[in-house]
This record gives sequence, structure tokens and C-alpha cells, in this order.
Amino acid sequence: MIKIGIVGGTGYTGVELLRLLAAHPEAELVLITSRSEAGLPVAEMFPNLRGRVGLAFSEPDPAALAACDLVFFATPNGVAMQSVPALLDAGVRIVDLAADFRLKDSGEWAQWYGMSHACPDVLAEAIYGLPEVNREAIREARLIANPGCYPTAVQLGLLPLLEQGCIEPGRIIADCKSGVSGAGRKASVATLLCETSESFKAYAVPGHRHWPEIRQGLDAVAEGVGLTFVPHLVPMLRGIHASLYATLTATGADLQTLFEQRYADEPFVDVLPAGSHPETRSVKGANTCRIAVHRPQGGDTVVVLSVIDNLVKGAAGQAVQNMNIMFALPEQTGLEGIALVP
Amino acid sequence: MIKIGIVGGTGYTGVELLRLLAAHPEAELVLITSRSEAGLPVAEMFPNLRGRVGLAFSEPDPAALAACDLVFFATPNGVAMQSVPALLDAGVRIVDLAADFRLKDSGEWAQWYGMSHACPDVLAEAIYGLPEVNREAIREARLIANPGCYPTAVQLGLLPLLEQGCIEPGRIIADCKSGVSGAGRKASVATLLCETSESFKAYAVPGHRHWPEIRQGLDAVAEGVGLTFVPHLVPMLRGIHASLYATLTATGADLQTLFEQRYADEPFVDVLPAGSHPETRSVKGANTCRIAVHRPQGGDTVVVLSVIDNLVKGAAGQAVQNMNIMFALPEQTGLEGIALVP
Amino acid sequence: MIKIGIVGGTGYTGVELLRLLAAHPEAELVLITSRSEAGLPVAEMFPNLRGRVGLAFSEPDPAALAACDLVFFATPNGVAMQSVPALLDAGVRIVDLAADFRLKDSGEWAQWYGMSHACPDVLAEAIYGLPEVNREAIREARLIANPGCYPTAVQLGLLPLLEQGCIEPGRIIADCKSGVSGAGRKASVATLLCETSESFKAYAVPGHRHWPEIRQGLDAVAEGVGLTFVPHLVPMLRGIHASLYATLTATGADLQTLFEQRYADEPFVDVLPAGSHPETRSVKGANTCRIAVHRPQGGDTVVVLSVIDNLVKGAAGQAVQNMNIMFALPEQTGLEGIALVP
Amino acid sequence: MIKIGIVGGTGYTGVELLRLLAAHPEAELVLITSRSEAGLPVAEMFPNLRGRVGLAFSEPDPAALAACDLVFFATPNGVAMQSVPALLDAGVRIVDLAADFRLKDSGEWAQWYGMSHACPDVLAEAIYGLPEVNREAIREARLIANPGCYPTAVQLGLLPLLEQGCIEPGRIIADCKSGVSGAGRKASVATLLCETSESFKAYAVPGHRHWPEIRQGLDAVAEGVGLTFVPHLVPMLRGIHASLYATLTATGADLQTLFEQRYADEPFVDVLPAGSHPETRSVKGANTCRIAVHRPQGGDTVVVLSVIDNLVKGAAGQAVQNMNIMFALPEQTGLEGIALVP
Repeated sequence: MIKIGIVGGTGYTGVELLRLLAAHPEAELVLITSRSEAGLPVAEMFPNLRGRVGLAFSEPDPAALAACDLVFFATPNGVAMQSVPALLDAGVRIVDLAADFRLKDSGEWAQWYGMSHACPDVLAEAIYGLPEVNREAIREARLIANPGCYPTAVQLGLLPLLEQGCIEPGRIIADCKSGVSGAGRKASVATLLCETSESFKAYAVPGHRHWPEIRQGLDAVAEGVGLTFVPHLVPMLRGIHASLYATLTATGADLQTLFEQRYADEPFVDVLPAGSHPETRSVKGANTCRIAVHRPQGGDTVVVLSVIDNLVKGAAGQAVQNMNIMFALPEQTGLEGIALVP
Repeated sequence: MIKIGIVGGTGYTGVELLRLLAAHPEAELVLITSRSEAGLPVAEMFPNLRGRVGLAFSEPDPAALAACDLVFFATPNGVAMQSVPALLDAGVRIVDLAADFRLKDSGEWAQWYGMSHACPDVLAEAIYGLPEVNREAIREARLIANPGCYPTAVQLGLLPLLEQGCIEPGRIIADCKSGVSGAGRKASVATLLCETSESFKAYAVPGHRHWPEIRQGLDAVAEGVGLTFVPHLVPMLRGIHASLYATLTATGADLQTLFEQRYADEPFVDVLPAGSHPETRSVKGANTCRIAVHRPQGGDTVVVLSVIDNLVKGAAGQAVQNMNIMFALPEQTGLEGIALVP
Repeated sequence: MIKIGIVGGTGYTGVELLRLLAAHPEAELVLITSRSEAGLPVAEMFPNLRGRVGLAFSEPDPAALAACDLVFFATPNGVAMQSVPALLDAGVRIVDLAADFRLKDSGEWAQWYGMSHACPDVLAEAIYGLPEVNREAIREARLIANPGCYPTAVQLGLLPLLEQGCIEPGRIIADCKSGVSGAGRKASVATLLCETSESFKAYAVPGHRHWPEIRQGLDAVAEGVGLTFVPHLVPMLRGIHASLYATLTATGADLQTLFEQRYADEPFVDVLPAGSHPETRSVKGANTCRIAVHRPQGGDTVVVLSVIDNLVKGAAGQAVQNMNIMFALPEQTGLEGIALVP
Repeated sequence: MIKIGIVGGTGYTGVELLRLLAAHPEAELVLITSRSEAGLPVAEMFPNLRGRVGLAFSEPDPAALAACDLVFFATPNGVAMQSVPALLDAGVRIVDLAADFRLKDSGEWAQWYGMSHACPDVLAEAIYGLPEVNREAIREARLIANPGCYPTAVQLGLLPLLEQGCIEPGRIIADCKSGVSGAGRKASVATLLCETSESFKAYAVPGHRHWPEIRQGLDAVAEGVGLTFVPHLVPMLRGIHASLYATLTATGADLQTLFEQRYADEPFVDVLPAGSHPETRSVKGANTCRIAVHRPQGGDTVVVLSVIDNLVKGAAGQAVQNMNIMFALPEQTGLEGIALVP
């Protein structure tokens, strides 16, 4: 059994991580910290966990965390980087579900996250936890930067095309849509049901923190990437839908086969038959990315549709997938839940 | 492995049964029939099952069904009763998720369902599959009438009070609310998103088919039951919330303890702490009934709040629970999924 | 033109009041105050009002308010009572959309609202602004206590029965359901989309502030009222549905006619044909209460279904209706908007 | 008063037209036809119209229609073209809310709509009813082809850029999202609440009928238009959000001013301040198109965000706007309803 600690855990990423770990046969949850909720039984805050998670939130305690095999950080940006160096020194492996270790360039990180990075040296060591790209490095990693939700959906949708040089890299459009849980579980007017239900809008068009993260991932496989990324808010709980547009360099390529081959051995990427339109509900609660590729009217524009559950493949599920790889477990362990439809 | 056949299975109860059985370690799904969809791979209709259910829908074939250990009927009312006698003769055990075998009185059945019962003699043998009441009989049953969704939530909420004589049986109010999936997956204007979203209404106030089913269950434990049952439609996918009102015969009873003791050994009934308000989402996708009991302002009216997922404890999950009991498996086998929150 | 001031106005009741007043031919909106948002153009916070409301929020200014003909308070409970006496002295008429003047008994008010009442003498003068009961008194009133949302739906549904002695007053059940906008527009975890969507729950079963308000209204027409009131939260924006249960004293009464006659001259109460089930969407955005009355299976229990839009007939619309009566305008002036379906 | 007939009218476009016309001071609704619902009072199907629309649906009667000043067709595609020639001969003016007269090329129409056009000669006369483009022609028109919902949102968002030559016309992306009411009010599995709620998907990526309609409009102002149009389904009732992407030909243009000047005199197009993100709810129930224009990070990609209510500016409201222009009424007559928020 892997001894697991969770730092933070009162948000939606946290409760989803608890849902997955409570059913994971090799995970032993030993502590979960929350400064604000210390003492409160987890199942009192999240009654869906009654009978399944007996722990109460506790004050952060470095010694107790240091006794874990693995610590997940499900904290706001900027928190994990304060504690990670000491935990690494104590021999603990770490998966950070926040953004602290996602950008390789600490200067760029500081610019987008509005603070200096606390440990740029550790940043250099962190592995970006997208298994479909970095599986081998993840096996031995001490520190995983778990990818953002949009970056997961977008990169999985674009990488096959960029890797094979099928598209012009300079003019990629990523029009993305997310359910409201992506905004987190904090008191806020903007994410009240009465502000978000029965409405649809774009946000952060001038610039969103996931833009440099996606760019970094695309830059690793192609030169001259130009990316326009526009996120939108969908009146639903969970789900991300990325609609990706690019210009084909050659119109003869068999894109369907390209995608199918790229992901043939991937347990959590499902390329749909030609002509499909993936629905976000088809991955609700599941650690799956479903992808369809289209060339409307046979033209030179390729349209890739990529869906994930932002809390699972876009956060907690991918974190558990990384854990499975790090601890040499079968990658699907504890991640075989089927999407809830309807 | 239990060899399982499903008759019907293109509705929401069917896809939920498939979701549960696909993950059940002792179930081997050998066929699923649908006259209208014969030949279509199940996972093409329900992409959430891609990679998990390889079967295609097939034409109903009595011989193939007769080779199963257990057949689930997830058909419209009036279908199962046509086939059940022959299957029983062939030694197959049956769980009917429709209403064909729920009412003991075939005359009453005919009145509420608008057709004569095809096999009143078999009706006499059927066991009403509410494990919290009939567990022993279910073990040996050949034919289970799986309870309706409202009847499950209402009976579990009222039985402790009626069994102990704590309430006046003659004036019980069951004000119930259901998500739209209870209405099934058939083309219909009334259940379009644009007819049901952002609205709330009662329906069937003059009379609903679950009324005699609930009455039958309550009559079994108390005399003189008078029940007013009003169902309402909630703009959401899943979930039933029953708000139950009755007059206490004595105000001294410790109702909290009464409920806790009644359900102490029940794996799927969770009595919440005093003062709680169960949310339907706390059981979304789970086979759990959560109950809270209140006596507002210490008066002589008791208010019981009972929630289930109509597709799980109110249908497919309870059917699997019955299967587990019938085949002497641990009752929770394959039913340990945690509710998806949010 | 009536010179109008609004105190508060950044909440949902406020924006709805603005929507109605901006289209009211006799209303001249001269100021709207908000301490926290002073300086912000109203239409910047609520873009639906762009081009229709040119005002900016301003700091509360007693002199400016004193120059109005009518001031609406759309403030949290306990605010209006601080300013009302001085405004009345200045000759301003007032409609308070909060609860400060709804309960006649200042002791009971203090108990339910957790503070002493600032002006019990003024309380005595306030008229409860339910036009279907108090129309004559409203005409001359200086101060209107605009009714709560649940109390409006419940009283309109029960008054005909109690006035005519048709029901036993001692055991009335009001099972009520509200959209989330009833909880207001303040940063709060409990009303996030991700906490309320796709779920249904009861709340405040031990006691809700609208209980004494409803009781006061019912006590005025019948002796011995006993009321159980259970509110529930519906995953939708707007709408209240009250399901009301009582025991008939005589089963021969023609309840349909009783309701039709009671409301024959009421412009905003619509008694539906026998057998109907009102939907909340049928009043979405409209100042209408729609009511249906049932006697299930001809028994002695009457079921009344009453729906309103909590922000219109349950708040801002009723406030404007009261204004129309106070200023001798045709009661429907500015209130003829038709419900938005779908 | 304009004597008005409606053919069709049992769908969402129909009920919205009725809502608007019932409140229009110059409209006299004299008949509304529906073959399937003949005899049924309109307000029985749509209770929000109780007390406001007294008509019942009637069998289509050419003579009665011929006595109208204006007939609206709110019928499925292919119906209006059967009756329009005779009505024109009778001197009736017509607004067709379906697609029968939207494409100038009858061959292209036949290809996209799967049937031959019944009256290509009349097609030639029809005026495309987008007032922001064709206001003068609409004044005298006998026959208006009311634009589609997506085409309205997309053209209003792109025309200023194309008219001024600010963008490369050959590579325009229109990523559009619509509420479910756009799919109409017919019994269908695909638009059940349980199929569309809590999910998001693209549809018709290979080709959608609004693509040639949009292209025709863009071709009229620019050469070499290349358009990729991908519609998506949003789990909400009303609203369209178009996210439009194009490459700027020169990055020095002041796009904000360009849009503001283009629409300065338009009563129903509202250009938001720089940096804005329009929400669909800001136009819910209103005949307004709100637009924002962005240039993310100062690059050469322009992003235009354009929102409308698909049933109002995208259908019934625009039809009434056309009627107002045709009959020389002030263009805003009967269209001043403010969007319902929340």
C-alpha cells in the first residue's frame, strides 16, 4: 500500500481525488490537511464520502507529511512550492495538482502567476505529468507537475498533428469550453448558479494562464507555434470540450489513422470513429480523453474535437494515473470507473 | 461467473445496468436484446461504454435467454410478463425492473396499468425486491419485482415509523421530487430540455402508478394507511427526494435512534445525523439511500427526508443488489461506486 | 412621473426592480444607492440594462432620498428600519422589499431575525403589501412591507380555503420549492453552481423566517392554524412552487369555483382549469401567481399547487404592484410582461 | 393596426412570436394556423399566454390568410414556399422565419435542404431580412427571408471587418454555440433534457445549413471568403455565442472604433467597451446583439464575440423588427423588453 497524504483537499479537485483514492486498492490515505477546516471530518463536508473516508482534516504537519510515500498538493497556486523542497529532501514523492511546477521558465511563471517562484531549481527537476508524452520520465520522477485541464485536452488533440508536421504551426486556434467546476470551490459571485446557469460566455480572452502551458507543450514538438486560446464557461458542472483549428500542410494525410496509431496503446485516450462528435458527458467521472478529427468539406482546415472531464483526466484522475506510473502499478488501477450517463 | 441476459436496455435504466454490470466482478454479460436496435453495438449508442461493453444489441431469442443464469428485464411495462413464465420454466432466474410484478393484486394491476395481467399465477410467486424488507425471500426467489423509484425512497423513509407504530397511518403525505431521467429515454415533447429545464411542476396529482405500490408496501406493516402522494419534476438528470409528513402518535419517541437502529446493518441505507438535510447529489451514481428525520419546532409532525438516485437504488443498482443476494454474493459486490460530487 | 429612489439594488431583487421600473411609463428613477459600488454605472454591473438605465450607484444620501416620492429598500434585513422613520418624516412613501416590517409583533421579529427592531412604533403602521388581501389599506399606506416570496405563494394558495372554513386549520403542510435566486447575490459557497446544480434538497426544516410570516397571514383569517413549512432548493434560477396539503372539513365543496370566485377580479392571480399542474416557467419574469386545486381520488385531502416567480410576484413585481396602488395608477401598469417560455 | 396571421406557431419560434406580438401596440393577431392542433386554444398549449392570446389554432385557410396585411411563417423548412406565391398575389406581405427564401441560388438551396425549390422566381425577389444590411430594401419588400440564428450572430460580428478589408477573408473560423431551443420543439431523443443537460458537444461539423447562408452574406461584401463554421450545443434554453477568428491584414486598425461607428445608429446592436466578454444572458428575451472585439496579446488574430438570443434577434424578434420596418413603424416598437437576468 502506498501511504498517501493530501495537502489541501476542500476543493473540487480534492474531493475528486478522495473519491478516486478511496476506491484505489493500493492507496492508503493517511492524512489530509486543511488549515481552515482542521478537525472537521472529511465526510461531513462531502457526505458522498460517508462510510468511505474516515479521516478528518488536520493542520498541516511537516513530520506527518514526511512519513508519506506520496503527497498530493491540491492547493491554490503558490502554496506547494513553499513545502516541496523539504518534502523532497525527506524522500517523499510529490504530485502537484496546482500550477507551481508546470512552466519550465521561472520568469514566465512569475509573469503569469504574479509572484516569484520559490524554488526555481526544483522547477528544473519537475516532470510535466502528461503520460501520453512523458511516461518514461514519470516512472522515476520525484516531483510531478500535474497538467492543467485545458492543456490536457488541447495538447492531446494537437500533438499527433504537430508531431507529424501535418499542420502549419503558426496559426492554431483553440476554442475551449469548460464546466464551472474548473473555477473551484470558493465563495465568489462570479460562479454562483445565478451568474452562470442559462448563460454562456468567453473569458480571459486577453490572456489565460493555460496559454503559456499549452505553448510550452506544443513548442516541444514543433517550431514556430502560434496559438490563440479562448476559454469559455459552460453552464454545467464538469467537462471540457476543446475545438481545435489548424491549416493542413498537405491534404492527403489520413488523419483518422494518424490519430488512431498515435494513441493505439494509450489506455486513456479514445479516438472515435471518423465523423464522430464527442460529448463531454461520455467522460463524466472517467479518466478518458475522447477525440474526433474532421476535415470539413474536404478543405485544408482540420478540426479536432477533444473532450475530458476537467476534474478527472484534467486533474485528479491524471494525478492518480501519474501515481500508478510512479509506483509501477498497472496504469488503470483505480481508474476504471465508467462515465455516468445520463 | 453469473451468465446474464438483458431484455431491453436502450433506456436509461438499461445503460445504468450496463455500467454497473460491466464493472461487476462476478457478472458475465452474454446478451442484450433490442428489437429496434438489433445489430447496433451497445457502445455506439452509449459511447461511455466504449472499451467496456463489446456486445451489440440482438433480436430477442428465447433459446439464448434460456441459457442465462439471470435475465434482467429493462423493458416498458407489460413486456416482461409475456416472456417470464417460459423463462422460469427453463430454470432462469429473473429480475424485472419494470412494474409487471410489483402489485400483488392482478385486478389492481390491470386498473393502474391499463391491461390485463398475462400471468397472475406467476405474480403470486414474485418477490418484491426491497432487500431492507424482503432479504430472506429474495435469496431463494426465482422472480424479483424490482421496486419503483418513488416507492423505494418513500418506503425506506416511512417503514421504521410505521413498524413501530409511531405515526398515525391514516394521513401520510409523500411529497416527492424526481429528476427527469425517471421519465425514460423516448422521443417526447414533455421531457425535452426546453420543456423541463428552468421549471418545476407537480404531475399526476389525481393518481400515479406508484401510489398503489407504495400503499401495498405500507399496508404490509400497518393498518389503515391513508396516503397522499404527489410527484414533482425537478430540472436535473438524476435523483429523487421524498419529503414525508405524518403525525406522531407519541411525541416522546427518539426518532433518530429508531432510524439508526432500523438500518444499522443495512449496507445501502445511511441515516444522517440529527438536523441534516440530505442532498440528492450525495447519492448521484451510488446505490445509497440517505435519510434524515426531523420534528420541526418539537411539534407532533414528523418530517422524513429520503434521497436516492432513481437510476441506481431506484432501479439498476437495486436490481444488482437483488442479484447479489440471489446468488449469495456479498451484497455490496459491484456496488461500491462513490457518488459523483459535484 | 413618480420620483423613485432605490436603496440597495446590487442584488437580484434590485436588478429585477430596475428591469421593471426602466420600462414603467410613470416611474422616474432618480437615484440608486450602494455603499460598496458607489460610482459604478448600474449597467456595468448588469449589462442587460445597457441603454436603459443610465444611473450609477451612489453613496446613500438622506437628502436625495428625502426628495423622492417613493423609496424602495432592496437591502439586507435590518437596514431599512434604520432609515425609514426619517424618510417617513420627510414625507416619502416607502416599500421595503426586505423583512423589516413584515411581522407585526416586534418580539417575534427580534426572535427570528436575531436583532432588536429599531422602530417598533413604525412597525405598527406598516401595511403588509399583499394586494389580494390589503388592497384598500395599501392605497393610503406610507410604508409597505412587501411580502416574502414563499409567503406570497403559500397565502394565495391557502386563503380561499381558510376564509371559507373549508379546511381544518390545525394541520396544514406547505412543501415549498424555490429557485436559487431566492438566496440572493452574495459570494457564498452554498449557492455556487457546483453546489446547487444537479441536486435537490430541503433546508431550514427546523425553522425558516417565512414560517412566522405565513402564520401571521393565515391567523388573520382563521383560528387554530398549525403549519408545517418545509422549503427546498431547486436547481434553477427563478420560480417558487408551493404544494399545499390540508384536510377538508366537508368534501362537498366546489373548490374550483371557490378559487375562481375568490380571484375573479384579481389581475395577477390566475386560477387554472380543474386538473391542471402549473409550471413555474409559466410565470418566469411575470407578476402572476397561477394556482390549481386538486382533491386526489376524491378523498378528503385537498392539494393546492401555487406558482410564482420569486423575483417578480415574490419580490420586485409585487413591489411595483404596490406602488401602482399607492399612486392610484392602473394596477397592471408596467407589469404586463409575458412570461418567457422556454 | 396591422392584421397579422401566423402559419405554424406551435414551436418555440412561434410562441416567442406570440409573446412579442401580444404586447405589440400596432399588431392585431387575427389567426394562427396549425393543422395538428386545430381547435386548441393557444394559451392551453402555452399557459404563459393565458389572458393575453385568446385565439385558438385553426386549420390553414387561404382566404383567411389572404385577408391579412402580413403573414409570418413559423413552419418547418419547405412549407412556406408552397403558399407564398398565392399570398403575394393576394397582396399579403410575408416574413418567413424558416429557410425557404434565404439562399439566392435555388440550386444551392436544393442541395442543402434536400428538395427542389417550389418557386425559384419568388426566391429572386425575397429580401434577406438583416436590417443592419438591408434596411432600405426591407421597407418596400413583399417577402422577407428572416435570417437564421447563427447567421445573424456571425454576420453582425464579421461584417464590419470585411466591409473595411481589415481581415484576410480566406481563413475565417466561426466557432458557434447555441442553446437547445434552436433545435425546435419536436419529439426527439436527441434534445431530451437527459441527452443534452450536463454535456457539451459539437455537431454537424461536416456541414450545416447555416454555412451557405453565412457565406452568401459574407460574399456580398468581400471576395475570396473561406469559412469554417462549427456549431456546438450548450446545455441551456436560449442564446447563441459566436466566437469569430480571423487574421488582420493590418494590425494598426482601431477595431473598437470601427465596430462602434459601424453600429452607432443601430438600435439593436450594442458594441461593448474594449475588454468585455458578452454573456448570452445579457440578451435573454431581448432583441439585442452584443459584440466585443479583442486582439489577444496584440497579435494579428482578431477575436470577435457576438451574442444574441436565438429566439429573438435570431428569429421572432428580428421578424418583428422587419415588420416594423416594412410598415414604417419606429423600429423598436414592441421590442423594448429588457433581458431577464438572472
